[in-house]
Amino acid sequence: MYWTADTLEGLPRGKRVALINSLSGFKSANLLGTRSRQGQENLAIISSCFHLGTDPALMGLIMRPHSVDRHSLEYLEDTGVFTLNAVHDEILDAAHQTAARYPRDQSEFQATGLTAQYQDGFAAPYVAQSHIKYGLSRVESHTLVNNTVMVVGALQHLYVPDSCLAEDGYVDQEKAGTVALSGLDRYHRTRRLCRLSYAKPGTPPKRL
Amino acid sequence: MYWTADTLEGLPRGKRVALINSLSGFKSANLLGTRSRQGQENLAIISSCFHLGTDPALMGLIMRPHSVDRHSLEYLEDTGVFTLNAVHDEILDAAHQTAARYPRDQSEFQATGLTAQYQDGFAAPYVAQSHIKYGLSRVESHTLVNNTVMVVGALQHLYVPDSCLAEDGYVDQEKAGTVALSGLDRYHRTRRLCRLSYAKPGTPPKRL
Repeated sequence: MYWTADTLEGLPRGKRVALINSLSGFKSANLLGTRSRQGQENLAIISSCFHLGTDPALMGLIMRPHSVDRHSLEYLEDTGVFTLNAVHDEILDAAHQTAARYPRDQSEFQATGLTAQYQDGFAAPYVAQSHIKYGLSRVESHTLVNNTVMVVGALQHLYVPDSCLAEDGYVDQEKAGTVALSGLDRYHRTRRLCRLSYAKPGTPPKRL
Repeated sequence: MYWTADTLEGLPRGKRVALINSLSGFKSANLLGTRSRQGQENLAIISSCFHLGTDPALMGLIMRPHSVDRHSLEYLEDTGVFTLNAVHDEILDAAHQTAARYPRDQSEFQATGLTAQYQDGFAAPYVAQSHIKYGLSRVESHTLVNNTVMVVGALQHLYVPDSCLAEDGYVDQEKAGTVALSGLDRYHRTRRLCRLSYAKPGTPPKRL
């Protein structure tokens, strides 16, 4: 199929949403944990979280202010802290369910059976059931042309099971059971194909 | 393992880079195609490309200006157009190889054996071997705190094989052989676990 900007606009909305959401390929699935100053906890599954830099260690995430993320965005802007928690296959249904439009005074932790965990003096809640998780402090936000907000966070605390840590520092998400997401609602497990050597001009990559 | 911001800084640089790059989970693998006004073609594998909105259809991507992406960033800022092309398992080695630091006058298309394709009057090159590909016009850029640049593009042309298109509009990346990336250099194929129903308060998700 071939679409232009115009013919895309002519698609029924549901179909257009499914189509555009599935273009980029496989996405990470993480749970964003926040808590308001008043103590209200919030947990939201997010599919756009990415590495921004190593010195300092920065991560970015995309939040649509009119979606279910709006409480999360408010709390993280207000308190300046949030957590990211990898979604693995055993908590997949609960993680997906955090996307439901719960009222503000309903904690998605309680609604979905996931457990809020506080540790090492950090004010935002982790997901106890997640294996790979980290706490971040908000560095900056950028409001994009369509009112979507990009949040940049600096890594403050990081937890990775020893069994998921390779010698070179790589975190083996596959071993942790982490799922990949595609489109709005499809979840996948992965199977490692290969590791490729550092790319250099004139030398084809080797499979390590 | 547990790290704080301070103990992370104490890690050897290579290990820290591998660690931070693999935190977010599985990432999409796409080839970014650009061409300068003078006709110089550039192709770069990117791992941070994501959906930003449907009305209008917007995608975002992250570029590190001091990395191999710098020619791409220059060309797309200058010409205002670029393409994204999904990486599938049969072009994986060539796609990875585009990350090598080629001199400016060397086209990554020629260097890696991928074929530049021009169609429907669009000025930026697609990858002929990719199955899922789209052309975008640059809408805005945001320079982040660490000089990383986030580019927002609006979808102008979109190509998806009929065989990879589900009835609801979903693009089946698994059918297209699209790979997922983790860390700096690990590539994965996927196996669909499930599709989950739209999340609503009070109703657990169904497996569709």
